[in-house]
Amino acid sequence: MTDSVPIVVDWRPFRTERTLTDAETTDGAVTLVWDDRRRTQFNPFFLRDNCPCNECVLPLTREQVFEIVDAPDTLAAAAVRISDMPAHSVVSDPAEGQTLQVEWSDGHASAYPAGWLRAHATDPASRAERRAQTPKLFIWGAEHADGLGVFTHDQIMTDPAGLLDWLVALRDSGLTLVRDVPTEPNALLGPAERISHVRETNFGRVFDVRSKPTPDSAAYTAVNLPPHTDLPTRELQPGYQFLHCLVNDATGGESIFVDGFAIAQAMRADYPAHFAMLTTMPLPSWNRDDRTDYRWSAPLIALDTEGAVSEIRFANFLRGPIDAPTEQMPALYAALRQFQAMTRDARFRIERRLTPGDMWVFDNRRMMHARRAFDPRSGARHLQGVYVDRDEVRSRIRILSRQTG
Amino acid sequence: MTDSVPIVVDWRPFRTERTLTDAETTDGAVTLVWDDRRRTQFNPFFLRDNCPCNECVLPLTREQVFEIVDAPDTLAAAAVRISDMPAHSVVSDPAEGQTLQVEWSDGHASAYPAGWLRAHATDPASRAERRAQTPKLFIWGAEHADGLGVFTHDQIMTDPAGLLDWLVALRDSGLTLVRDVPTEPNALLGPAERISHVRETNFGRVFDVRSKPTPDSAAYTAVNLPPHTDLPTRELQPGYQFLHCLVNDATGGESIFVDGFAIAQAMRADYPAHFAMLTTMPLPSWNRDDRTDYRWSAPLIALDTEGAVSEIRFANFLRGPIDAPTEQMPALYAALRQFQAMTRDARFRIERRLTPGDMWVFDNRRMMHARRAFDPRSGARHLQGVYVDRDEVRSRIRILSRQTG
Repeated sequence: MTDSVPIVVDWRPFRTERTLTDAETTDGAVTLVWDDRRRTQFNPFFLRDNCPCNECVLPLTREQVFEIVDAPDTLAAAAVRISDMPAHSVVSDPAEGQTLQVEWSDGHASAYPAGWLRAHATDPASRAERRAQTPKLFIWGAEHADGLGVFTHDQIMTDPAGLLDWLVALRDSGLTLVRDVPTEPNALLGPAERISHVRETNFGRVFDVRSKPTPDSAAYTAVNLPPHTDLPTRELQPGYQFLHCLVNDATGGESIFVDGFAIAQAMRADYPAHFAMLTTMPLPSWNRDDRTDYRWSAPLIALDTEGAVSEIRFANFLRGPIDAPTEQMPALYAALRQFQAMTRDARFRIERRLTPGDMWVFDNRRMMHARRAFDPRSGARHLQGVYVDRDEVRSRIRILSRQTG
Repeated sequence: MTDSVPIVVDWRPFRTERTLTDAETTDGAVTLVWDDRRRTQFNPFFLRDNCPCNECVLPLTREQVFEIVDAPDTLAAAAVRISDMPAHSVVSDPAEGQTLQVEWSDGHASAYPAGWLRAHATDPASRAERRAQTPKLFIWGAEHADGLGVFTHDQIMTDPAGLLDWLVALRDSGLTLVRDVPTEPNALLGPAERISHVRETNFGRVFDVRSKPTPDSAAYTAVNLPPHTDLPTRELQPGYQFLHCLVNDATGGESIFVDGFAIAQAMRADYPAHFAMLTTMPLPSWNRDDRTDYRWSAPLIALDTEGAVSEIRFANFLRGPIDAPTEQMPALYAALRQFQAMTRDARFRIERRLTPGDMWVFDNRRMMHARRAFDPRSGARHLQGVYVDRDEVRSRIRILSRQTG
């Protein structure tokens, strides 16, 4: 952070074309009326909590110093006034519009840009408007295999707009292909570090998936790997997985991607009881060797606070013994077997052969990946992988949107 | 992983002193009777899913190859038999007791050690027995300040039993002090890497908290920092935080620890409506600068699937504008203000001054930490920190328990 960064409420202006036509206080709350006749009531604690003045917020970091517990129980807006001048002390962008001035019952005074108030209003219409801005997910089926988002290494490494396009595709569709990645070890770190640091695991920062004509370890067997997410054994599964192909001279070993959100959506519609079971019953995953012993239990399908599917957690080869009452086992296994059957259904499967220089980047908490058996005597196969968490991709998208938006 | 590792069901034997007295099949399920008269019914899919034979499980990795969807819908145990011989093919420890032989309706045959069956039985008594083995948490109050678990650098670095003692104290009490850590930069990585890799963040693998007589950045101000967890802005807050004191010549700056689980427990008892609000209403945390913009919303108090408090997520200076209906704001702010008031209550606070060579290691998702204001002109202050996730501590405890138990 440097001194030259302008001080803004949220590192971005909240622009609005709407005009405040009225402001009044009722029982200590503030009611605003806008030129589109929207009416918003603001709770006094909410407004006071968000006072952007230089006493309540540390100017350079924009971090809140004021603690709302220090407001009196009887806190009330004593007087409000709309000013047509922008709130100079807190914002430099006149497009944030008018300013709401509030005098509080305890003597503090606050000034809020109209754009900020419009963006954070808590009436039903304003909240619905915000929810409508949630990015729409693209749900994959076999019929979409040709619609895959394909990007180039060059675009990601040199063009911020290209980087943003890629990350938005990754966030919303969960599956992308990056071409022309140099076939050198650790080349995949270039695109990953355009986002942020990678997520280290017990397999290292970069993990090697390498086959040899004579495999010397079970980790490098050539067997079929059924569709799975990586590391369901961790409380937080890695968000995005990068799989970069350096060598692929072996016969077989095709990659298959299955959109777990597509299966969850179909299951919710066609098998609601199975869906209810898999969204509520914790299932254990275990990964144990001689040096580590990771375990975590969580439902196979996670829902966010709005009830939308937010995560798939499934790797058959890492499942542990289920700890559920005997009488729930029939319904539980019926649901699990149905899910597993659907991972084999052709309508959900996208199959591709990896070419050296190709790098698949996909949402590991959504897009299950599988590998067909291959013949290790037929040639070498070397992939490298890294993980980058969802937090990092979301942060980078916000920063790039600030710069280009 | 090496070839010399013995093949065992779960990298540990499931020993039992109990004896199976009867086994029978009813409608395809298996009912076992033990010498303490416990009766357990096993669902056929559950048993088949856990067949440990070398065809169903890859011997070297103990990873499951068999997929339960491949069992017929009509799967049934056709015949069962108790053998007094241990299941030689899958286990080398005779203390696992008898073997249950099962012939399945599809022709497959399975053999389960009695110890494994006893440990994974799904009848109410067996499940209650397992739940009773959950480690008991030690809940902190000011009156326990003298009972702090104190360990030495040497003990952690050289003695596996000492390392295990420390990690168990950390898991169960959430707060430990390690003494005699060399006052050299990065010395805290020694104890951290006795557990596993550290968790990297945008602040680096190791972060420096350094004060200078003339601070040049807001990150190094000398102001009071109220009790908080680190990085509530991430989907998964870092599990454990290490704070190592290298230099502390400044006046003030005492460290304060507040057990969030103690507050949650008191709130659950005394203010159930506030507790209900804080366990269900997502509250946003934001941390944004010119290069990153992290945001996450989650309830301040998280509960696990059993309803026990599992996490606190709170940093006043990183809170964002709450997105809740206007009519919920009064109850929400009442709950939030009550929680914040309790973080100031002397009965929950443990205050200590950091001495060079001291390293506090604490559960960052439970134990809020605070710092009193200090006078940066009075002398230098330099701390270093790292994070290690809960998954890693749990894994290391399991491995050390295997070796020493």
